[in-house]
Amino acid sequence: MSTVVSIRWSPSGDALRILDQRELPHARVERDLRTVAEVCDAIRTLAVRGAPAIGAAGAMGLAVAMAPRRGEGREAWWTRLGESAARIRAARPTAVNLPWAVDRLLATVGDAHAAGAPVDALADALRREADAILTEDRAMCRAIGEHGATLLPDAARVLTHCNAGALATCGIGTALAPVYVAHARGHAVSVWADETRPLLQGSRLTAWELAEAGVPVTVIADGMAAALLRTGTIDAVLVGADRIAANGDAANKIGTYALALAARAHGVPFYVLAPSSTIDAATPDGAGIPIEERDGDEVRAPMGRPAAPPDVAVWNPAFDVTPAALITAIVTDQGVMRPPYDFASLRAPRAALAPLPGQRARGARSAEATETQP
Amino acid sequence: MSTVVSIRWSPSGDALRILDQRELPHARVERDLRTVAEVCDAIRTLAVRGAPAIGAAGAMGLAVAMAPRRGEGREAWWTRLGESAARIRAARPTAVNLPWAVDRLLATVGDAHAAGAPVDALADALRREADAILTEDRAMCRAIGEHGATLLPDAARVLTHCNAGALATCGIGTALAPVYVAHARGHAVSVWADETRPLLQGSRLTAWELAEAGVPVTVIADGMAAALLRTGTIDAVLVGADRIAANGDAANKIGTYALALAARAHGVPFYVLAPSSTIDAATPDGAGIPIEERDGDEVRAPMGRPAAPPDVAVWNPAFDVTPAALITAIVTDQGVMRPPYDFASLRAPRAALAPLPGQRARGARSAEATETQP
Repeated sequence: MSTVVSIRWSPSGDALRILDQRELPHARVERDLRTVAEVCDAIRTLAVRGAPAIGAAGAMGLAVAMAPRRGEGREAWWTRLGESAARIRAARPTAVNLPWAVDRLLATVGDAHAAGAPVDALADALRREADAILTEDRAMCRAIGEHGATLLPDAARVLTHCNAGALATCGIGTALAPVYVAHARGHAVSVWADETRPLLQGSRLTAWELAEAGVPVTVIADGMAAALLRTGTIDAVLVGADRIAANGDAANKIGTYALALAARAHGVPFYVLAPSSTIDAATPDGAGIPIEERDGDEVRAPMGRPAAPPDVAVWNPAFDVTPAALITAIVTDQGVMRPPYDFASLRAPRAALAPLPGQRARGARSAEATETQP
Repeated sequence: MSTVVSIRWSPSGDALRILDQRELPHARVERDLRTVAEVCDAIRTLAVRGAPAIGAAGAMGLAVAMAPRRGEGREAWWTRLGESAARIRAARPTAVNLPWAVDRLLATVGDAHAAGAPVDALADALRREADAILTEDRAMCRAIGEHGATLLPDAARVLTHCNAGALATCGIGTALAPVYVAHARGHAVSVWADETRPLLQGSRLTAWELAEAGVPVTVIADGMAAALLRTGTIDAVLVGADRIAANGDAANKIGTYALALAARAHGVPFYVLAPSSTIDAATPDGAGIPIEERDGDEVRAPMGRPAAPPDVAVWNPAFDVTPAALITAIVTDQGVMRPPYDFASLRAPRAALAPLPGQRARGARSAEATETQP
């Protein structure tokens, strides 16, 4: 199993402690975040990244930022909570986990606030709920790993893209979770990792965390994946997802769609692995998923060193959408789902139990709404 | 038209002058090469690169290296010529143009040597033949551009991979030649360039030379090409080739195959553009094309800056093979060819006129042999 811990509470409990992924694999630097600005900056600059991890980091960050403000007065605290939640929600646009986790905290305290509960109780409730998200995410990773491992042959040779491992979650990852489970069972699983330009999460992060765990890993440039698949070396492609639409279209790191096309061309199964909170039933298909475009210098200057002419135009979308038709199965903590997807049958995450008036319906809450409609 | 000149004779004529592509786009450094070791090093380290350019550079380099050795005696000179030719031929394995050009020089002097011609005459003949290759390559580029331009719509939006432009040839390029021709005619042609990991020829070289010529260019990471094609932005994909087998399978820079799959998925025409000397009729299909594997540090350390763990395994093939079935048409200096390919109908390059005993049959010479067989 992976020994890497991407996010946790600091020992004194007053901060969110992250392993700064901007420094990997060259240095193992942990940072303690205490304010909304620090949390948003860490999410925006990818110090913490990966849809499940930024969800948990957003929730934990909100809890630690609000805790020391108990003395500000009940209504001021409540107003600040709404403002802080909005800022964290907006730190990155594509992953549904971030608004899902923040909204879940708000939903937790909504009724108590309306009933006149004191700030101390509200702040404690935020902390408990954020801790529950952390704990549940670890369990979800483990469940994804168990379900996903059933799809792998003995001595499986896996190709993955970006980093959907321990560093992207609070536990053993999503796409890499079946790899860790198989490895822990003594299977000779091995991984090929797309380097994943422009930010090289594959070579920087996936290669590092697999090596830390003793899993054999080979790095390739993204353009080599199709040629690798053609050699017959790969048994399965495993990728994560930042948002899965109601029809099964999945947004994930840019380059995933190209990989899905190549896997299909060679008859290699293509699996998307993500916690059920990644499913956004309110978005009917991939066309409705907002795609973050990032600074062109990420492409112009690999690892910060200018390659292209400095003023050249760049198109730099951070994600693309793989249509459901190219996905063999979607693996969540609740099991292996094959098309046509019946996401409404999934158990709803806890936020569904207490929807907040005025909060936009998202994720499995909407799936539940669908269930109750004719 | 492009104003970039990748290789030429030095003003005094005693050296091969190259624009050192390792320094681009940050500095415009020209180097004069005089020895076989310098020529091989420049080819091996990609100071000069691109199948047509390394063919011409190999021939011109052989001529300049042999010229000052006229005093060594006729048989010593002849032995050294064979050894030098073998070293240059072997500098890189995939492009057929390099052995083709070197063999063409040998074929030029073979009969004269057998007939007892003096060293001066042989050395002068090498020089004339190398100059002919240079001149013909310029004309071939222009012809490829004229033929290829007929395939482009008005205001064409072109996607390309690696660099098959002026820097890869002695003239206006192969894949980019139709772009330069259309641009010179006043058409609003624009280009999207894959950055082309690991060596970033797209962002370093293609973006630079197109910007020099005033052609609008947008750089993307390789993994973005499929997503770009999906947006409907691209009218045609134009790529070069390092070797084209008898059935039309084409070896080109790693990542080309992935691009061909994505173009096919979106119904975008995929054109391979190359001089007819790139066609290797002696190789029946792509499986017979040797694929150079290069040092893993090219992947581990983009632009020389380590990204991955230092000892991680890497697979780094420099080329892949696009099967003929994914290629809409092959454009050579002799016209636009569509499948099934009748390469035997092409006029044979000049080397075919005087095949050397003991030299391995290659390229259109073999096509000619096929023509005369039952």
